[in-house]
Amino acid sequence: MSKPRDSYREDVAGRANVEDTPELLAYYDELESFDAGALWTVANKIEPWEPQSSSQPVLWRYKDLRDHVLRSVDLVTPEKAGRRVIYLNNPGRTDVAAAVGWIYAGLQVMHPGEQASAHRHSASAIRFIMEGTGAYTVVDGHKMTLGHNDFVLTPNGTWHEHAVSADGSPCIWQDGLDIPFVNAMEANFYEVHPDLTQAVAYPVDDMTKTWGNPGLTPRGGDWTKGYSPMFKYEWAPTYEALSKLAGCSDGSPFDGILMDYVNPVTNGPVMKTLGASMQMLRPGERTKAHRHTGSYLYHVAKGSGHSIINGKRFDWNEHDIFCVPSWAWHEHANASDRDDAVLFCLSDLPVMRAMGLYREQAFGENDGHQPVL
Amino acid sequence: MSKPRDSYREDVAGRANVEDTPELLAYYDELESFDAGALWTVANKIEPWEPQSSSQPVLWRYKDLRDHVLRSVDLVTPEKAGRRVIYLNNPGRTDVAAAVGWIYAGLQVMHPGEQASAHRHSASAIRFIMEGTGAYTVVDGHKMTLGHNDFVLTPNGTWHEHAVSADGSPCIWQDGLDIPFVNAMEANFYEVHPDLTQAVAYPVDDMTKTWGNPGLTPRGGDWTKGYSPMFKYEWAPTYEALSKLAGCSDGSPFDGILMDYVNPVTNGPVMKTLGASMQMLRPGERTKAHRHTGSYLYHVAKGSGHSIINGKRFDWNEHDIFCVPSWAWHEHANASDRDDAVLFCLSDLPVMRAMGLYREQAFGENDGHQPVL
Amino acid sequence: MSKPRDSYREDVAGRANVEDTPELLAYYDELESFDAGALWTVANKIEPWEPQSSSQPVLWRYKDLRDHVLRSVDLVTPEKAGRRVIYLNNPGRTDVAAAVGWIYAGLQVMHPGEQASAHRHSASAIRFIMEGTGAYTVVDGHKMTLGHNDFVLTPNGTWHEHAVSADGSPCIWQDGLDIPFVNAMEANFYEVHPDLTQAVAYPVDDMTKTWGNPGLTPRGGDWTKGYSPMFKYEWAPTYEALSKLAGCSDGSPFDGILMDYVNPVTNGPVMKTLGASMQMLRPGERTKAHRHTGSYLYHVAKGSGHSIINGKRFDWNEHDIFCVPSWAWHEHANASDRDDAVLFCLSDLPVMRAMGLYREQAFGENDGHQPVL
Amino acid sequence: MSKPRDSYREDVAGRANVEDTPELLAYYDELESFDAGALWTVANKIEPWEPQSSSQPVLWRYKDLRDHVLRSVDLVTPEKAGRRVIYLNNPGRTDVAAAVGWIYAGLQVMHPGEQASAHRHSASAIRFIMEGTGAYTVVDGHKMTLGHNDFVLTPNGTWHEHAVSADGSPCIWQDGLDIPFVNAMEANFYEVHPDLTQAVAYPVDDMTKTWGNPGLTPRGGDWTKGYSPMFKYEWAPTYEALSKLAGCSDGSPFDGILMDYVNPVTNGPVMKTLGASMQMLRPGERTKAHRHTGSYLYHVAKGSGHSIINGKRFDWNEHDIFCVPSWAWHEHANASDRDDAVLFCLSDLPVMRAMGLYREQAFGENDGHQPVL
Ligand SMILES: [Fe+2]
Ligand SMILES: [Fe+2]
Ligand SMILES: [Fe+2]
Ligand SMILES: [Fe+2]
Ligand SMILES: [Fe+2]
Ligand SMILES: [Fe+2]
Ligand SMILES: [Fe+2]
Ligand SMILES: [Fe+2]
Repeated sequence: MSKPRDSYREDVAGRANVEDTPELLAYYDELESFDAGALWTVANKIEPWEPQSSSQPVLWRYKDLRDHVLRSVDLVTPEKAGRRVIYLNNPGRTDVAAAVGWIYAGLQVMHPGEQASAHRHSASAIRFIMEGTGAYTVVDGHKMTLGHNDFVLTPNGTWHEHAVSADGSPCIWQDGLDIPFVNAMEANFYEVHPDLTQAVAYPVDDMTKTWGNPGLTPRGGDWTKGYSPMFKYEWAPTYEALSKLAGCSDGSPFDGILMDYVNPVTNGPVMKTLGASMQMLRPGERTKAHRHTGSYLYHVAKGSGHSIINGKRFDWNEHDIFCVPSWAWHEHANASDRDDAVLFCLSDLPVMRAMGLYREQAFGENDGHQPVL
Repeated sequence: MSKPRDSYREDVAGRANVEDTPELLAYYDELESFDAGALWTVANKIEPWEPQSSSQPVLWRYKDLRDHVLRSVDLVTPEKAGRRVIYLNNPGRTDVAAAVGWIYAGLQVMHPGEQASAHRHSASAIRFIMEGTGAYTVVDGHKMTLGHNDFVLTPNGTWHEHAVSADGSPCIWQDGLDIPFVNAMEANFYEVHPDLTQAVAYPVDDMTKTWGNPGLTPRGGDWTKGYSPMFKYEWAPTYEALSKLAGCSDGSPFDGILMDYVNPVTNGPVMKTLGASMQMLRPGERTKAHRHTGSYLYHVAKGSGHSIINGKRFDWNEHDIFCVPSWAWHEHANASDRDDAVLFCLSDLPVMRAMGLYREQAFGENDGHQPVL
Repeated sequence: MSKPRDSYREDVAGRANVEDTPELLAYYDELESFDAGALWTVANKIEPWEPQSSSQPVLWRYKDLRDHVLRSVDLVTPEKAGRRVIYLNNPGRTDVAAAVGWIYAGLQVMHPGEQASAHRHSASAIRFIMEGTGAYTVVDGHKMTLGHNDFVLTPNGTWHEHAVSADGSPCIWQDGLDIPFVNAMEANFYEVHPDLTQAVAYPVDDMTKTWGNPGLTPRGGDWTKGYSPMFKYEWAPTYEALSKLAGCSDGSPFDGILMDYVNPVTNGPVMKTLGASMQMLRPGERTKAHRHTGSYLYHVAKGSGHSIINGKRFDWNEHDIFCVPSWAWHEHANASDRDDAVLFCLSDLPVMRAMGLYREQAFGENDGHQPVL
Repeated sequence: MSKPRDSYREDVAGRANVEDTPELLAYYDELESFDAGALWTVANKIEPWEPQSSSQPVLWRYKDLRDHVLRSVDLVTPEKAGRRVIYLNNPGRTDVAAAVGWIYAGLQVMHPGEQASAHRHSASAIRFIMEGTGAYTVVDGHKMTLGHNDFVLTPNGTWHEHAVSADGSPCIWQDGLDIPFVNAMEANFYEVHPDLTQAVAYPVDDMTKTWGNPGLTPRGGDWTKGYSPMFKYEWAPTYEALSKLAGCSDGSPFDGILMDYVNPVTNGPVMKTLGASMQMLRPGERTKAHRHTGSYLYHVAKGSGHSIINGKRFDWNEHDIFCVPSWAWHEHANASDRDDAVLFCLSDLPVMRAMGLYREQAFGENDGHQPVL
């Protein structure tokens, strides 16, 4: 006898609505033997009316995570662990170890004088510094020094190694990568550097000095790789840029003052698969709700406030991390009437846009604010 | 007591190699309660040395499938089923109903006078006609008539409906879509046309007549959408193009004479998420093996031969379908010394390329030919 | 005493209107000694209200030119003349030997077995065949055979040589080049091939066979040069394309059925500095007048009719040539109620567009038709 | 009897070399009556071996010009003159009032409280401030304040007006425009603003604040016009950028440390027809000679030194202006061993590049230095 099946029936014109019969069930079994199936048994499942993310909205509090991150130093050596990282494991995405959607994120700690072994892979990373001094990264021979709220790119295929200089202090940073996406696309390669370390071949911070100048480009600087040559993006000019923009723009009702980090050669995303943005919520600002496709991982760079995601309130403070899954309603509020709050955001927006899959919608009722569950 | 875990240990410099201890297992449990984990327990799994596809190489014989497809006409009405389609269900991808990787494919049958209800969705489709006369498709008001080995695009977001005219014969075609990919990206929307049908608003085949002219473009024809305006691609000019190219090019050692279908406005892929190509194996031609990232679904448009995929031989005839998973070794051979064989191929190559994830490798040993298992 | 000057005075707010005084005239002389001048003496001249072309509308009748072209065969040897060409010399542009604006054109004759010496230059050319059989051109090793109303590109920097095969007949063609423009930009280089001829290195017509296929591109065919790889554009598929477009489009009120020849890799112009188009006037068609920037040289590919240019009527027959200067009103009429007429057009439209200088305007009065002077 | 002609004969294979005969002279006359000519009589002239610029190298000393500029204030009213500008009149280009090639330049003076009438035209301008305080420009409703060595764009088609605020001081600036080029292309339109002035519609300097941030772009800031949205480029960040680049790059042997001003949206030139760059000659630096196509107008932004152009030495000081014609050999030397010198440069490089006409060559002999005549 044939096994029972879920056929996802819907009684709507244009949708599949086929009742199981013994004859059909037998037919389904036969098809199965040919590695085939009847579309109408799965059509309504694989063609949903709108996206339903498998990710859950989650807030990771830095005060919870920090102790555990620091404890890893006592528990494992860098040699054994490769990297001492506590990764964010979305309850809906544990099968792919993602923080949200296809984005991986973790907090890594490194002590002065420590250095990770050089390697490269198809996954692309953004390393965002949370605390400590003396952190640096070498990418394809370019050394970048890193301070608070700075970040560095280690794009697809580049040799890279993170380290903290001997005269620094213990450093914690957030790693954000597209590992789950690259795995899903079955395109991840990994290679350890033959020397486990690489030589610094250029003046320190040369890529940011060369490419990070407003309205100016180096003559003869032909850069055609699929990622930004700027490599390091610093907090100070970013905060200055947001402040300037706040002084001459109303911003967005949904996002306040929002700027995207870009590849200066294309004005497009810093890497093809991973986008980064920074947004300022002005004193007292409370945004309206909207939703859009794509997966978003926020990191509180400055200030405190709360976000309402699919009707649930999440209160956040500096260096807390939270996620907004695809097509989830969300709105943000700054807790302070005097200081601004600033949110750093990693996302797969570049993928959604390049593939023509980005769509957004404003929350129309209740003056744009979700009822809190 | 803590549960046992798989930690994917490797004894290689730069890779995770941490032994479970009671203290660590307790630590892992604690992390879990914060929706977090220790990277070194999964690092070697999520950062593999090279891709290992979850798809299996499969050959679907048309002589097996055809009867089952035709039988569906007796088993379900179009009204109940939505569409009478037998889909290809890769044993490694049954969870997402994919033929290979993130690509869906099915065989659909329609009788003269039948018409599917008009709808639209974020997934993009290519409908490739296998047999029958009188098939046509309407896309955003443009009607396209379709013959043997022709195909039509129904891109992301376009209203579309398939039909067979009353004076035609029963038609079977292959549907290829990016449904699994769009679902994975959590960006699929579905909408039934309010009238269940749409008006034809332009002369028949106008888009192909307007845009399908070599080296000529209509003045004032500004087309900026993310997909080709050509909509229908016909077999006759395709076969002529392959023949002309074969007469003035050596082709590729791995692919024979291969042409990509393109958006004439960009010379890029016909749609952002789904690529199509046609390749000719000349009489007696046997290609060398290579492998590359991306998922590929072949359809035998003409002739017969065999392919060796990861060491396994698959013999194919006209309208058979087979797949090559990501990073699988593959080579093709034409069975005839007198006639050419032609393979139509659907793939996610546009995604792989746009995301910087395409990589390929020639099979170096044995004069380029795999040992057959 | 200072010399008198023309100061182009206008009595309009915002325009220069300065009367000569002895003091000013002395001042002007002083400025002149420093290689300087007073802007207000020339401002109204160099900033006109709208363009006034220095070119005149001209019609060159083929029946007038043909005899003279043929006579050149008796008058000069190819060795002495380089090329036996009668060039079109617009009365307003004799200083730069242009047919209109910055476009050079000439009629060249070559007898069977003759071959011009191979050379290259920064100017780009389009060779349009008017009569005869056996004409061919070699461009960077690619040999193209040429028939009636076909044309071949010899882009900036490519080695090229024209010839007529020994079994052909005397050939006449129109050469169109951007020589005056490249000279004006002071960027013309000329080089004679060291061997005075070049080897044919590819199958005949390979570039058109490879690149001239609607909706298909050769895999691996990376072409990044600034001009079309198609090299030869044929009359038969062009006329077929116009006919197809006429069957599914209303066309333009000003241009009838107009298609631009394009680089298939970019869908942009065939070369950066020189554009080509072909337009069909349907039986009985009479277009409305408009004007636009840019210089246009028409060649009657088929049929007969007339054009009204800045109020003056020009009647044309097959292979007649006429020009429309920048910003000149123009409209066209087919003389036949049964046959179509087809106009080939060379222009600097690619320059105008790339530089943001293209502008157009419809003739508003009199139902869109100019009064004939 | 026929008039004598210059036929530019050359006794080189592949070049025209036809002797005048009575028969030929009569033939030429006949051709002339049809608005035609024999190519071989002009071929060697219009197809030169290499470019020979009609412009001459010229140095305009600011100490010479400044007095004359200031004197214009007493000589003409702004109402009568339109603008009080002394323009640079290259002895080889007086027919088109160009400083070099197709580039116009002039020095303009304005007193506190003065304001030019608002207008627009197809020509594009760069206004580079030389001295004075309080200068500002309004472009399409955006007001930009301007200090020493800052510049503002007034692109093709934008409404613009220059002014000096009442609390400022007399200002002198350099205007650089593509007027001769736009006239040559017969595409210049001019319009006086109906109100002779325009309203300021945005916060002061908003475009530079919004678009002038390194590695950051405003979300939602879709800018597709053919020119930079940044409008104003300031001296301070430019000098800082050159200093940073000098600290991490060897620069070019021909140009020292050279950066191009760019449209941040495209990383291409600030306007389609007019490019701007700034280059630093480090203390003691002496560059090697090269030549290239395109016309270049240098303005000494800082320091002193000399340039050798086609073998002639020109010594320059701050705010002196000099030109390098197309294909002229040139090299630069900083006069100081302690301070850097900085040269601002306007050019038609964007045109040369877009049209595929840029070419350059190093001076090979004498260790790269020209003999001085
Ligand atoms: Fe890494
Ligand atoms: Fe949002
Ligand atoms: Fe569909
Ligand atoms: Fe392959
Ligand atoms: Fe030539
Ligand atoms: Fe026109
Ligand atoms: Fe102006
Ligand atoms: Fe130079």
